[in-house]
Amino acid sequence: MATFMKIIIILISLLLDSACLVANASDISWRELDRKHTVLMSLPQGKVVIELAPQFSPNHVIQFEKLAKDGFYNSTSFYRVIDGFVAQAGPKDGGEKDKSVTQLKVEDQWSTDETFSFTKVQDNDLFAEQTGFKEGFAIGHSPKENTAWLTHCPGTLAMARQTPADTATSHFYFVIGQAPRYLDRLMTVFGRVVFGMEHIQSIKRTSTIEGELAVNSKEHTKIMSMQLMTDVPKDQQIIIEVENTEDKNFAKMLEARRARENKFFYNKPPPVLDVCQVPVKSRLVTN
Amino acid sequence: MATFMKIIIILISLLLDSACLVANASDISWRELDRKHTVLMSLPQGKVVIELAPQFSPNHVIQFEKLAKDGFYNSTSFYRVIDGFVAQAGPKDGGEKDKSVTQLKVEDQWSTDETFSFTKVQDNDLFAEQTGFKEGFAIGHSPKENTAWLTHCPGTLAMARQTPADTATSHFYFVIGQAPRYLDRLMTVFGRVVFGMEHIQSIKRTSTIEGELAVNSKEHTKIMSMQLMTDVPKDQQIIIEVENTEDKNFAKMLEARRARENKFFYNKPPPVLDVCQVPVKSRLVTN
Repeated sequence: MATFMKIIIILISLLLDSACLVANASDISWRELDRKHTVLMSLPQGKVVIELAPQFSPNHVIQFEKLAKDGFYNSTSFYRVIDGFVAQAGPKDGGEKDKSVTQLKVEDQWSTDETFSFTKVQDNDLFAEQTGFKEGFAIGHSPKENTAWLTHCPGTLAMARQTPADTATSHFYFVIGQAPRYLDRLMTVFGRVVFGMEHIQSIKRTSTIEGELAVNSKEHTKIMSMQLMTDVPKDQQIIIEVENTEDKNFAKMLEARRARENKFFYNKPPPVLDVCQVPVKSRLVTN
Repeated sequence: MATFMKIIIILISLLLDSACLVANASDISWRELDRKHTVLMSLPQGKVVIELAPQFSPNHVIQFEKLAKDGFYNSTSFYRVIDGFVAQAGPKDGGEKDKSVTQLKVEDQWSTDETFSFTKVQDNDLFAEQTGFKEGFAIGHSPKENTAWLTHCPGTLAMARQTPADTATSHFYFVIGQAPRYLDRLMTVFGRVVFGMEHIQSIKRTSTIEGELAVNSKEHTKIMSMQLMTDVPKDQQIIIEVENTEDKNFAKMLEARRARENKFFYNKPPPVLDVCQVPVKSRLVTN
C-alpha cells in the first residue's frame, strides 16, 4: 500500500479516534434543529448556520432574533477580529441604530439542583468542577454552587457588553481561537455555529501586530444578510441535523475517545477530555 | 462617549486583560528569531513565518530544513484539512518523492531533571502536571516522570506519522483548532507560527460533513514556496521578533492575566491559565 494511503487511513482513524471501535456513523443519533431558532448568516466567503439557545439564554435569543428579523445586521461588519480570539460584529459607531437597542440583563449561567441532568465529559476540568454537553452545547457545571453555564468553546456565539454586566445590546462575537474559558459566567453565550465554521475562521482580521499596517475598515468582512431560517425561501434554506448529545451512543463515543485504545497511541494520553475539543457532528439534510 | 467607542475600549482592555495594569507595550522584552531556523511559507492567501525548534526536536528540524532548502514542499498541497483540528500537507500519493525521505525517530519529549527551568503557567492542568513556556514554546512538564514536551497549541507545527512511532518523514500539520493535547508526547512538534496565522486558518478545508459534496483536489490550498528565511532575497525577508518568555515581564503579565483585576470581571474567573490560550506576541521589524 502506498505510504500516502497509509497515512490517510491512519489519520482518518486518528481523527475518529478510538470512537470507531464502538460506534460508526450509523450509530449516531441525530436531532433536527428547530428552524425557528436557527439563523442563516451569509458572508462573502460562504454561508454559516447558527443554532440559537433559547432554553439557556432566552432574552438574548429573543433580542437577536428580533434584530435578525428586522434586517438589523445586514451590511454590518466584523470590525474587531483578533486571530486566536474572537470575531466581533455590530452596527456602526454609536449611531442611532446602535443606540436604539435595549440593554439586556446578563444570562451567563442558570441555577441547577440535584435533579440537573447532562452528559458529563470531565470532572475537575481546569475551569469547572464538571464539564459536559446539554442539548448540543458544551457546558460547565458546579454542583457546589448549583449553577451551570454555556462555555466559550470555538464556534460559540456570545453577546459583547460594556463593563457593567447588564449592558449587552446587539454587538456579538464568535470565538475563533483556543477557548477563552475565563469569559464563562461573565458573558452571555447564546448560540453556536453548526455549519460553515471555516467561513468564520476566514473573516478578515482587523487587529495587527506592531510594525504592520493598520487594516482599512473597507476591508472588514461584511455580513451580507442575517436571517432566521424560517424567513429564508424554502429552496435556499440549509437544513442541518446535529448529533444528539443526550443519546447513549454519544456517551459511548466520549468514553472511547477518553480511552484512546487505537495502536497509534503508543504512549497513552491521560484519560481526560477537554469539552471544547470534543466535536459534535452536524450533517446536511436535503430539504 | 459613543457606545461603540466604549465597547471598543472595553474590548481592547479585555483583550489585554489585566495585563495593562502592570505592563504596557514598552515593557515587553523582545527576542529576534534565528533566521537560520526560520521558515517563510507562501500561500496564495498570504505569507506565513514559522519559528523552528532545533533545541527541542533537532532531527525533525534538520530534515524539514533540508527538505525546504531542496524545494521539496514547493507546489505540494494541504490535502487533509479538518476544521477545528489540523491542516496537513505533504507530497503526492506514495510516489518516488514521498518514498525518498528518511523516517525519523520520534522526538515528542525530552528528559529533565531538578535543574530544568521554564516560565511556569499552571500546576495540575488537565493534561499535564505543569504547563509553561520555554523559549517561546508552550510546554508540558512532569517533574514526577522527569520529562517535558512541546504541547499541541493552535499554530504549532508537527510531523505526521504512521502507526509506529518512528515513521514521520515529510508530511506535516498545523493545529488550527482547540488544542488536541491528547497528541502531546505522541507526535513531534517542531515549530510554531509566529506570523500569518490567519492565512493558516483560511486554508481550504478538505473534510466535509455527511450530505456535502466532496472537495475536489484541485481546490486544495497549494504551498507556493517553503523557504528558509536565509534563502529568501533580503528585500523579501519578513523579520519577526517575539516576546521573550524568559523575561520577568512575561511572568508578570501571566500573573496579571491570572488575577483578572479589571472591573469587567464582575464575577471572578478561577485563577487559572490555559497555556494554549496565552498569546505570545510577535512584532514585525523593518529589515
